Parts: sequence; structure tokens; C-alpha cells
Amino acid sequence: MKCAGSIDARMRDEVSINLDPIQVGGRLTPEAMKAMISWGDGYSVCDNCKKPFRLDYIENPPLKDFHAELAEWLGMAQARTVPGARRAFQQVAGTYVEKGDPVLIGSLAHYTSYLSVEIQKGIVREIPKTSDNHITAEAAAQRIEDVITEFKCPPKLLYIDHVDYQFGNMHDVKGIIKAAHQYDVPVLYNGVYTVGIMPVNNKDIGADFIVGSGHKSMAAPAPSGVLAATEERAEEVFRTTKMEGDLTGRKFGIKEVGIIGCSLMGAPIVGMLASFPAVKERVNHFEEELANSKIIVDALKSIDGTKILSEYPRKHTLTRVDTSGSFDVVAQTHKKRGFFLSSALSKKGITGIIAGATKVWKFNTYGMTKKQAEYVADTYLEIAETNGLTIN
Amino acid sequence: MKCAGSIDARMRDEVSINLDPIQVGGRLTPEAMKAMISWGDGYSVCDNCKKPFRLDYIENPPLKDFHAELAEWLGMAQARTVPGARRAFQQVAGTYVEKGDPVLIGSLAHYTSYLSVEIQKGIVREIPKTSDNHITAEAAAQRIEDVITEFKCPPKLLYIDHVDYQFGNMHDVKGIIKAAHQYDVPVLYNGVYTVGIMPVNNKDIGADFIVGSGHKSMAAPAPSGVLAATEERAEEVFRTTKMEGDLTGRKFGIKEVGIIGCSLMGAPIVGMLASFPAVKERVNHFEEELANSKIIVDALKSIDGTKILSEYPRKHTLTRVDTSGSFDVVAQTHKKRGFFLSSALSKKGITGIIAGATKVWKFNTYGMTKKQAEYVADTYLEIAETNGLTIN
Repeated sequence: MKCAGSIDARMRDEVSINLDPIQVGGRLTPEAMKAMISWGDGYSVCDNCKKPFRLDYIENPPLKDFHAELAEWLGMAQARTVPGARRAFQQVAGTYVEKGDPVLIGSLAHYTSYLSVEIQKGIVREIPKTSDNHITAEAAAQRIEDVITEFKCPPKLLYIDHVDYQFGNMHDVKGIIKAAHQYDVPVLYNGVYTVGIMPVNNKDIGADFIVGSGHKSMAAPAPSGVLAATEERAEEVFRTTKMEGDLTGRKFGIKEVGIIGCSLMGAPIVGMLASFPAVKERVNHFEEELANSKIIVDALKSIDGTKILSEYPRKHTLTRVDTSGSFDVVAQTHKKRGFFLSSALSKKGITGIIAGATKVWKFNTYGMTKKQAEYVADTYLEIAETNGLTIN
Repeated sequence: MKCAGSIDARMRDEVSINLDPIQVGGRLTPEAMKAMISWGDGYSVCDNCKKPFRLDYIENPPLKDFHAELAEWLGMAQARTVPGARRAFQQVAGTYVEKGDPVLIGSLAHYTSYLSVEIQKGIVREIPKTSDNHITAEAAAQRIEDVITEFKCPPKLLYIDHVDYQFGNMHDVKGIIKAAHQYDVPVLYNGVYTVGIMPVNNKDIGADFIVGSGHKSMAAPAPSGVLAATEERAEEVFRTTKMEGDLTGRKFGIKEVGIIGCSLMGAPIVGMLASFPAVKERVNHFEEELANSKIIVDALKSIDGTKILSEYPRKHTLTRVDTSGSFDVVAQTHKKRGFFLSSALSKKGITGIIAGATKVWKFNTYGMTKKQAEYVADTYLEIAETNGLTIN
């Protein structure tokens, strides 16, 4: 069925249990869908833009209050909304990194962290992971020392993911930040898998910047993200324009340079705004999410030959698993080859895993009910048994 | 009425004739609304992301074809979608401008042009406008010479608006580009008021870059925009990452640096995609839009004391008008003061003009029917007559 022209009507979460690693925290709430429909037209949120003419000052829809509440909720002095977490990385790197400057990045980081430094012509140095796939404060401190030796100055920034996208492992952000601050290195806390998923408050973290993703973890349409900063850093990263036309003398008020004037517009911001009450509430129920996740993780773990590559017990609903010794063995002789697994899941109404993947793959259980989790767990066990695998 | 939580249901174009200078080209088509609803969830468009894992290669929804068609439609080699025209400015400036580098900008340009240079720590030099508010090729050439004298090199870029946001005047982009190219200065054609509104094809223009706005002029949700480039410039502005992890050796495929990996996601891109057939069609009817505009402009012009500040006859539906000698005279003694005009318009179902504005203001007639234009014209005349102004 088409929704418009040649565009298929999307049927994903409407008809299936979705395990997609990146999608489950970004499904819209009913409130977000209604707000998006109401405010979908291009420049809609600018209806009531008054002096000083900046989007985060607009009172209807209540964007001014939202930005203030967002900052408070994250335990930060100020917050802005941006078109995606990557644009927050760009804004921070754009403030602190010049050509040839070193930046330290945890080696499990998303590629957009690296590219935000590349765009500034900065130089990335990585913090290695341990053999059990964690970034530690010790490794961070060592690499700061290495950078000082190499560049004769500390790194201009350090990026650390609280929960990384590769394993969904939780890293010692507090320890890493403490180490970085001993060298006066500002730290960007990458919370794209935590902000909107579990409680995140900078009073417990001590970062200079918190970055979150609306479409990944705050039930908002893409592209949407959050950049929050301490009072000290806010003055830098949210600096207002000093530009003046050389002939006209034109000036541009309190427009912010790093965001090129106004924060996030349109459908993504109203969606984020409308979902915010539900998002603030849901982070308090993360333990239930983990319990549901455990049902599926343990089921997979019980299939002989399967390895949970993420830390165990799990601290996040995003998990990486290796089924080379189980489902992939089946795939070798199955007439559908590697597609037997996604095909069998699909028949049972489960989606979101890359079709054909039977070796190493990821899944995210966020947002499902206990009943759905049990159903998914049972389905995996059933597929394993049907295909002659042993359940331990 | 609330649409969700504390957010008002928006009632603008649903209940009124809207004259808002920035909104009328960005109203969604029915197709865009339907597609947005279907694809509203966070990472929806990534359902079918396959190798080489880049958003503009996705075939369902048909983003790959869309990006190719967009480039062809604009007469350019390549096109990308971005979260707003300002992000296209940033991407181009980020490619060519380093600290202290000069950039020439037409002095009627939007503030985001200036800020995209400020973000690179570049230096803006303005091209002056003539007394009738035009940017000319002669002035551009003179200012290139001035920059060479001052900086010992030509400007790194030149930005020119085809139709500026202040007067809606049309500028000699072809002549300006020809002049700039004599000095090998790359030119960014700012088409935020033209792309999606009237026919724009680089074969007639000769720019290095064309920038358009989805939410301003392509019936798409915000934030959305287009950056198109010639083959030569595409290699630069759409360069792929060369980043490599120093410890891990990680590389990031064909992700593009300037856009930090992927082009526009989510509701804005599906909206833009769904509106595209209607947008391609509507640009062929711009003469009818101008004829409707003329009905209102001429009515205002006939009110004694009113001046049309934009060029006349009009070449665009965005018009700046000075009613200091007409409606503002009424405001002096009216019990509602300056609000009498917006109040009277509102009673007749006309919206989009800043409340209280009776001196210099702008309006945009794009997208209305002839009947609506006649109604708006009659309403202005009626308000004028009711308040004792003379109609010539």
C-alpha cells in the first residue's frame, strides 16, 4: 500500500515487534504524532516568533519552557535542540577545535564523533578499549598523557559514550571525566543511548556537555537532538554573533553562531516537545526495561553455541550477540541459508534484525512489554529447537 | 484546543488566508502530510539502509531516485538534502573558508549567510545594494577588486540571493556569477525563495552551488533544505571521509564529511519527497502566482500614501510595502492604535502579518487562488475606506 505517490506506507511497529538497535527509542508517542500533524507545515513554529526573534524564546508552542525544562532535567545550565546529535558534536567541535588540534575519542564511538573532528580538520586520537570492551578512566588518562607528549598540549576535547552503540556497554563516564578534568580537558558526554532511556543528570556525571538524540531515544521525529552545557561552557558553545556588516553595519542580535541562529524547527521539535512528559516518566522505569531485556538475552544465551558479546549481566537494552556457533551453523545447510532466521522471525511477527545476519548481530528490546519479551524469547528458542540446536 | 499536552492545535492555514512572508511556500501538500504520518517515527527511513550505508542510497522510501531527480531538476551534477538551507551554507563555507578568509555576501542577504562565515572565523565583505535595492554585477566585480586589494587574494566564496528576503527583489545572478568566475570565485546561489517556487535550472544560471529550502519553498516540514553542486564542486563539498582511527584503524566508508555522514532524515525528508511531484509541477505556474500577487499589490498601491518598496512591477510574490502615509496615519488616532489593521484583517480571516505593523511590512501571496487574492485586495481597500483613506 502506498501512502503517497510512489512512497510505501510504512508498516513496522504497527504490525511487528521491532528489535531494531537504533529505532526502538525513537518511536513516536501518540502525543508526538498528534503534535506533528498539527504543526507539520514548514515554518509553523514561527507563528509566534517575537523579539528577540529566536526559536528557543517562542512561547506558543511552549518552546521556551521546554528548553529550560530540558536543561534542568539534565542537570545542566542550558540546553538547545539541534537537528540530530551529530550536529551537537559539530557544534562543540566547531567551538574548540582548530586545524591540527588533537581530540580524544573513545574507540567504540559512533563514526559521527570522528567526522565532527574531521570537519574541523582536527586530529583524532583514540582511547583503546579493554579486552572486555570497556573504555576506562585509566586508559583515558594514559591517552591524555600520550597526546601531551605528541602535541605538546592536552586534547581540546574528549568524547565519551555512556553506552556505546557497538556493544551497548556502559562505561565509567564519571571516572573518565574526573581524569580529563585533571588536565582541564572539556568532556562531551554522548548520551544518545541514555538520554530519554534512563535517568541522566549531570549532577551525577560532571560533564561539560551532554548530547542526546531525539530520534534515537526521545520518541521524536528525525532529525532531532539535544546539546546541554554547563554555565561556563554554555557561554562558549552558545556564544551569540559578533558579526557586523562592513558596509551596512548590520548586526544580528542574539542569534547564536554555533547553531546558525535558531534551534531545531518544525515537526521534529514539536514531536520532541510533545513526547517530553512521557519521556521524563519512562526513564524512571528503566529497570523494568532491563528485566524484559534479560528474558530475551537469557533465552539466547541458553542456545548452545551462542555468545553474548556485550557485558553480562546487561546494563542496557541494546545487546550484541554472536550466533556463529548456533544459528549460523544452521544457515550452512538451510535451504534459505542465512535468511532462515530473519524469515522465521518475520513469520512470527518479529522484525528489526538485518536480514541474513546469523553471525554477529545486535538487537534492542527497549519499549516492549513483558509479554512481548517472553514471546520473542520463546520464538528464538522455538526456532533453535526446530532447527536442531540444543537448549541448555 | 490542545493537540497534545499543553500544546495548542495549530489553526493557521486551516482557517485563514495566510500572507506570512516565510510560511506560504512551506505549507505541506496532502501527500507530504500522509507520508509524514506514515514515516514519522525517529529512524524510520533507515528501515532499508543497506551497503554502502548512506541515506541518499536508500531505495525504500525512494530517496536514491529523489536525490538524483533533485540534481537533474536543478541542472546540477549532484544534490544532497540537509536540515535547512543554513546547514547548506555552513557546509559550503566549511569546505572553502578558513580563519581570516574573505567571503563576499550581497548586503540584502539573510543573517544565516553571515553566520555561516562567522562560524568558520571568516571575514564578510558586503556587496552594496543600489538605491533601488538591487545587487548588481558591477558592484560585485568592484567588491572583488576591493577584497583583492585588502586581502591580496580574491574572496573564497560569493553568496548571492536570487530573490532577497527583504524586498523580494530579483537580482542579476547570471551577471554576478559571470563577474565572479572571471576571478575564479565560486558562487553560492541562494534560492530559498525560488527553488520550489519558480523554475530554477543551473544551465541558465551557472552557479557553483544552488541552495534551496524545503520548509520555506518546497512544501516540506522543517528543518529541510537542498544543496546542489556542479561536478567539480561536488567533489569538494561532498567529499567522503578520510578519517582513520589511530589505534583501531577504523574507517568510515563513503560517509560524507560536510554533512557528517548522512543526508536529511525522518519526517522532513519524506515530506520533501512526497511533495516533490507537486512542487515540480507548481513552478511552471509561477506567472499565475504573480498575477494573483499583482491584484493585491495594485490594490495596496491605490491607497493614497502607500508605497510599494519592492521593485515594481513585481517579479516575486514576496513584497515589502510602506503604509506610514496611509494605515499608520489611521493608527495614530485609532483606539486600537497600530493593532487596528491586523485586527480588521483577522476579522475577515486574513492572517500572517505581524500584529501591530502599520509602517513597513511584508507579505507573500504565494499559493492563493485568484478568488482569494481578490478577496484580500478588496479587504484592504475596504479597511482603507472604512478608516477614511483615499483610494486613487
